[in-house]
Amino acid sequence: MNKNYLTENMTMLCDFYELTMANGYFKTNLKDKITYFDVFFRTVPDGGGFAIAAGLDQIIDYIEELRFSETDIDYLRSKHIFDEDFLAYLKTFRFTGDIWAIPEGTPIFPGEPVITVRAPAIEAQFIETYLLLIFNHQSLVATKTNRIVRAAKGRAVSEFGSRRAQGAEGAILGARAAFIGGVNNSACTIADIRYGVPAGGTMAHSWVMMFDDEYTAFKKYCEIYPENATLLVDTYNVLKSGVPNAIRVFKEVLEPRGIRNCAIRLDSGDLCYLTKKARKMLDDAGLDYCKIVASNSLDEYIIRDLLLQGAQIDAFGVGERLITSKSDPVFGGVYKISAVEDENGNIIPKIKISENITKITNPHYKKVYRLYENDSGKAIADLICVHDEIIDETKPLEIFDPDYTWKRKILTDFRAVELQKPVFIGGKCVYPRYTTDQIRDYCAAQLELQWDEVKRFENPHNYYVDLSQKLWDTKQKLLNENSIL
Amino acid sequence: MNKNYLTENMTMLCDFYELTMANGYFKTNLKDKITYFDVFFRTVPDGGGFAIAAGLDQIIDYIEELRFSETDIDYLRSKHIFDEDFLAYLKTFRFTGDIWAIPEGTPIFPGEPVITVRAPAIEAQFIETYLLLIFNHQSLVATKTNRIVRAAKGRAVSEFGSRRAQGAEGAILGARAAFIGGVNNSACTIADIRYGVPAGGTMAHSWVMMFDDEYTAFKKYCEIYPENATLLVDTYNVLKSGVPNAIRVFKEVLEPRGIRNCAIRLDSGDLCYLTKKARKMLDDAGLDYCKIVASNSLDEYIIRDLLLQGAQIDAFGVGERLITSKSDPVFGGVYKISAVEDENGNIIPKIKISENITKITNPHYKKVYRLYENDSGKAIADLICVHDEIIDETKPLEIFDPDYTWKRKILTDFRAVELQKPVFIGGKCVYPRYTTDQIRDYCAAQLELQWDEVKRFENPHNYYVDLSQKLWDTKQKLLNENSIL
Repeated sequence: MNKNYLTENMTMLCDFYELTMANGYFKTNLKDKITYFDVFFRTVPDGGGFAIAAGLDQIIDYIEELRFSETDIDYLRSKHIFDEDFLAYLKTFRFTGDIWAIPEGTPIFPGEPVITVRAPAIEAQFIETYLLLIFNHQSLVATKTNRIVRAAKGRAVSEFGSRRAQGAEGAILGARAAFIGGVNNSACTIADIRYGVPAGGTMAHSWVMMFDDEYTAFKKYCEIYPENATLLVDTYNVLKSGVPNAIRVFKEVLEPRGIRNCAIRLDSGDLCYLTKKARKMLDDAGLDYCKIVASNSLDEYIIRDLLLQGAQIDAFGVGERLITSKSDPVFGGVYKISAVEDENGNIIPKIKISENITKITNPHYKKVYRLYENDSGKAIADLICVHDEIIDETKPLEIFDPDYTWKRKILTDFRAVELQKPVFIGGKCVYPRYTTDQIRDYCAAQLELQWDEVKRFENPHNYYVDLSQKLWDTKQKLLNENSIL
Repeated sequence: MNKNYLTENMTMLCDFYELTMANGYFKTNLKDKITYFDVFFRTVPDGGGFAIAAGLDQIIDYIEELRFSETDIDYLRSKHIFDEDFLAYLKTFRFTGDIWAIPEGTPIFPGEPVITVRAPAIEAQFIETYLLLIFNHQSLVATKTNRIVRAAKGRAVSEFGSRRAQGAEGAILGARAAFIGGVNNSACTIADIRYGVPAGGTMAHSWVMMFDDEYTAFKKYCEIYPENATLLVDTYNVLKSGVPNAIRVFKEVLEPRGIRNCAIRLDSGDLCYLTKKARKMLDDAGLDYCKIVASNSLDEYIIRDLLLQGAQIDAFGVGERLITSKSDPVFGGVYKISAVEDENGNIIPKIKISENITKITNPHYKKVYRLYENDSGKAIADLICVHDEIIDETKPLEIFDPDYTWKRKILTDFRAVELQKPVFIGGKCVYPRYTTDQIRDYCAAQLELQWDEVKRFENPHNYYVDLSQKLWDTKQKLLNENSIL
């Protein structure tokens, strides 16, 4: 948790319209109007059954460091559209509101408020771009990674993608999110320094080519790193050169020292065929303890197929398809206004209508409960309520599908846990800072509470995200009021 | 060109294996062995005919600031695998080698060396990760953007994607690359401050919802920003509420002042149908000068289809599908050793063989010529040569396909331009720092030199990237020597 990461202040990483609107709220006397915004998303990437929330720690840094420098204000002045009063106001601008959020590492579902912001209009509006950027990016990578890790069925997965990441943070915070999502380690060295993501690595093809021959390259490496010898065997020919040279070197350098912690890595060719052949060669040479690592444009689908076909792989290196979530590289989190307060502090729910039905929002200041059945301990539904509703676990609870309201279910013997935790209250951070390790462990534990049916890659069970009767009624009322004939 | 951007040094943004190899080269006395590496890529994203090089400016910053801090060295020491001699060496580590590169904004093709590095082994190896990260990211976005801009056929395109970018640099350097690739402006404010990418923006749905009604929201906005009034008309109902309210406000607030620089924006629904209807309503109201802006998950394919179907759109806002290059979010640039020098300074070409034919490298210290026919001025082929070859434009030049060598062509009346320019010589930057504007203009001019057939979205002409006879012979010799029966 290195707060110095944000050495350059990210305040100006905002869509320009946050500034035109801010100046507009200032000039229309709306700047102190208390408003509520929700961060939520509409669909799970890759058609999966759930996403994993990530990025809150960086959002906290951002909120705490939010301020406009003189340079920023000079820049804005140069645009000749902002009032001097407004620019003066920006000099002491800080975030003074409240934020609640679902903790990092929690499985999250479409439609539910993951982050809720309550603040004066300008503040609540202004933080939109960066909040979304951080939440979308890290949730994307954590979600994708967890799919890949599940496909590996307990085998180690290493994150190798820095060189194909979209910018430096794509690599660094990508490695952090990947670790939360379940990889064992990363090649990204700086992510180890900053976030304690264990970094590791051995050799590239260039190491092999730097020496006169493959055997010498392998031998030198094993002599220098006897305890960390993963030899890359596909520079020339895997089965005719790479594997035989690796066996020879393991026997010459490691065996006499009793070191059995060795591996070979394949980065090209038919990984199924080659690993089966290589496994046999290693076993025949008495190196049944030598592990086989495979890499080369892997993702959850290829890993699943390799294992189904009996590939002999002990660990996977996964790069570009993880770090960019290649098959679905956008996490569509949005930031929508859900309510405002009038001068008496009454909360006025707001709704956005849309030609696209899926773009209609859930109004009001809300809270989310996750409901677990006591029998299995597993999660059965999330229930979005109006902020002041309390679920009484001792009484039967009737939940229903918000679209197909005849689909109803009465819960008894259940547990209800509020998902959002307070993060900022009155501009002060009240949330503990967890280590990346802690978040990773929490994520793994939370996933145990989800049914396997929700974790399927394709056609997962559609986890229930329902609205309470009170919230459903509020939404219908607003829809009817806003309908235009 | 704000060099302060890299306020935190990116030296440790490296794959960990760069460090294990560095220590290995140090211990095997290879650290000063002069080596040559090439950055090249194998396929154009989205099946396009060419890519656009971008990111060199940030690579220069990185190389100039390359150094290990005490913290970095303490971290490495804590791993207990690095020699103290090596750690001492890192304290004064700097890049002392040479780098040549094809300028940013140039159309580039698979297989050709875009960047060539000549340096002592540790230095040349170490910079791999970050060089690739920067080159891959920005080239990806510049390439994708140019497809989108071409689809818009002269209409303005704005980059709106920060909130869906993969990390802060994904947004900021993404906006820079998008500007090079041809967008007119970006929503990303900080990219304006740092890189002079013009930033702009007006309102979100939340602006409309902050007021009691849509009419008031539009009116207030036009009063504050009469010269920058793009009204978002789809918060409630485009045709029944949004457009009529916009027309009313334009007439009430702007028309009396003679302001005709106004627009409406649609961000949902059937953009083709709605823009046609909106256009008619605007025209019927005498607002034929009012522009229509469309956004909502656009890319080159949707833009092309909208225009084919007669959508009435004057400008496009493009977000997630541009900033992540959603349809193909990985630019596969690689960094491969191509030669080493022996103790006498003789260059020994190196080749990487592979089970995947496409992964076989072009050996040797090379240069690239772009060949233009004088008749049309258009580019006809790139020719990769050994570094010491000179093309004589006054004599006929025979070029041939490196795979199908019977495909031959004799060029006369042509012009040959070396593509790579010196960037670092002996560790010193010798390359001018261009503004983003200059790079954007250069890119546009370079694209004029390419045939339309190369710029097709699907099944473009396969631009010729040939090897000189001398280079081809070198490659065949190495392939034969390394073939293993």
